This record gives sequence, structure tokens and C-alpha cells, in this order.
Amino acid sequence: MEQKGFTLWFTGLSGAGKTTLARLVETELVARGHKVEVLDGDVVRTNLSKGLGFSKEDRDTNIRRIGFVCHLLTRNDVVAIAAAISPYREIRDEIREQISWFVEVYCECPLEVLAERDVKGLYKKALAGEIKNFTGVDDPYEAPVSPEVIVHTGNESPEESVARIITRLEEMSLVEETERVFSEGEEAELRRRLEALGYV
Amino acid sequence: MEQKGFTLWFTGLSGAGKTTLARLVETELVARGHKVEVLDGDVVRTNLSKGLGFSKEDRDTNIRRIGFVCHLLTRNDVVAIAAAISPYREIRDEIREQISWFVEVYCECPLEVLAERDVKGLYKKALAGEIKNFTGVDDPYEAPVSPEVIVHTGNESPEESVARIITRLEEMSLVEETERVFSEGEEAELRRRLEALGYV
Repeated sequence: MEQKGFTLWFTGLSGAGKTTLARLVETELVARGHKVEVLDGDVVRTNLSKGLGFSKEDRDTNIRRIGFVCHLLTRNDVVAIAAAISPYREIRDEIREQISWFVEVYCECPLEVLAERDVKGLYKKALAGEIKNFTGVDDPYEAPVSPEVIVHTGNESPEESVARIITRLEEMSLVEETERVFSEGEEAELRRRLEALGYV
Repeated sequence: MEQKGFTLWFTGLSGAGKTTLARLVETELVARGHKVEVLDGDVVRTNLSKGLGFSKEDRDTNIRRIGFVCHLLTRNDVVAIAAAISPYREIRDEIREQISWFVEVYCECPLEVLAERDVKGLYKKALAGEIKNFTGVDDPYEAPVSPEVIVHTGNESPEESVARIITRLEEMSLVEETERVFSEGEEAELRRRLEALGYV
């Protein structure tokens, strides 16, 4: 049976977990039989956006280009997953208009948490003024007004975020609900409870 | 039944019929149930290559970018059709390496024929030196050494070229052979011949 294509668009500040979540969701959807392509920063910089910088115009061009590829994949029944800061609301909405099934996932995480984690050491440099045009520090980030999903990566685990994203995709009928598979321990516990209630 | 993806790469000089043939083949393959995307010059300039010029480096970047998108589509069972001058053999071969099913179609047409037709008036300008870096005039075109198909658009009709391309795709088992449908006249003629031979 052919599955429907859609675009899952992760937006949020650097370090907010976009690529991590994109890869985890990819694994889950591939396991459920979907065709999936992830377009994250590295893939895009190498293959689509060599030479583009960080001015508003260049960022917009970059995001439009990712959007175009997502559009082509989506209309051919592939799940396209984009993981890009994509700071400007107007451009994200422009891409939403272009794509039939567009699911925006806002990876929300407070700047203080990101600056403290600072996995790549970029926030320290940006806050010290050593890197310019850094989104969230000296360049704007416009949070989505009504994204399909918000994940709070500052205080929930990646697994929790992924579960909420998948649930939302099921609610939107983009992904089929699977039967819940119980572990042996869970099954024994369930049986005990059902017995206690007199059902088994 | 899921059909296999492949990339059909049209290469040749400006005006040699790449886009015309790409669109005709698209129509035929869609009619046979394939998913098809055409990436021709216009689509690419608007969506992937804004800002690129005609230096060797920029041309290479442009072709690699088209190749990347063809790669993504092909591995997701879509037929990607590229129509791009793509003058440099090395880059075309680099893309061939990247894509599992790659079919190169060389649209061969003598420069004199193109200059005489000159649909867009570009050859006149290029030959007069008003346009620089024009492939085939003052910029090189490296013909494929062993393309899967050569079509001679200077002396065969688009329908003939398309038929030869489709036949090649059938031979390569990328497209299923369809039963030949005969017109009433053809069927009567066939019956006469079979009767003459004593088969009917």
C-alpha cells in the first residue's frame, strides 16, 4: 500500500535538537514502511547551498531551496524531513503554502539552556561577539505562531519529543496508528490488573 | 506494483531539443504509471541555482545540484528527468557514479543546424560575440563517449527520438514493455499478411 508523502519541518535555534529529533523520527518512520529523506544542515550546505552566507537574503534563498526539494519529494509520496534553523516566519509560511502536507515542529528551548549546554561552543563565541549574525544572539528568530507540534527540548527527553511528534502525525492521518506492542513485564502487569478487575 | 526510479539525463547544445524530448518522455512515462519529475533549465534556475553564472565552476555547481536532486528522487522510486546542457563529461560521469540507475541521452545536432534554426536568436548573438561563454560557440561542449542513447535531433522527428528512448528504457528493464496496440487499418493489413502466409 502506497503511503502518503508529507514534509516535517523542524525549526528552532542552533542546538535545540532539530537534527537529533529528525534522525530519530526518520528511524521510526522507516520502521513503519515510509520512504524518508532527511535534509539537515550538513546535507544542504554540501549539496544545495554552497556559497550562501548568513545575510537575510541568503538565508531565505537557502530555506526556499530546501522547501523546493521537500515539495518535490512530498508530491512523490516521500516523507521529507527538514532540520534547519529557518528563523523567518514569512519564508516558512511561504513554503507551507507550496506543500500539500506540511507539519511544522517548533523545537523550543530557552537561550539560557542552549548557552549553558553549548555543545559546539558557538554560543560562547556569539555572546562574546566573535561570531556575528548568530540566530538568537544578534540575529532574530521568529517563533512559529501555531505550529502543528511544539517540543520543549529544554525539559523533555528526545524520546518524549519523538513520541509526541508521531502521535500528532497519527492524529493527522499522515502515519498509520500501530498496535501497541507490550513488553513481557508490561503484559504480566496488564494481566494482573485485568484479573484484579475480574476481566480475565 | 511499485516502479523503479531512474534518472534520464538529457545533455546537448542549446536548442538541441532536450526540454522538448524531456516533456514528451514525461507524458509517455506518466501514461504508463510512473512518477516523474522534470528538472529543466527554467525549474532549476528559479529554484536551485539563482545567482550562479556561466563560469566552469558555477556550471559544475549547477549540474551537481541537479544531480543531487535526481539522486534523491531516483532512490525513492521516482523517474527524474534532467534537461541541462551539462557540457563537461567529468561532472556528468561524477553524477552517473552517484545514481544507481542513470541513463544518459545525448541530443546530437550539428552547430550549423542549430545556428540556422536559432529559435531564441541566441546563436546569432553568440556568433557575433554579443553573448560570451556560449556553449558550442566560445565555450566547450564535451560529447558523451558512450551514452545509453544518442538521438539525432537534426534529422529525426521528436516522435522518433522519443520512441528510441522508450525502447532503450524497455531494453534496460526500467520501463515495462507494453502490448503494441494496432489501429484498425494496421490490424486488417496484418491479417491479410498472415492469411497470405497461411497462418490464419
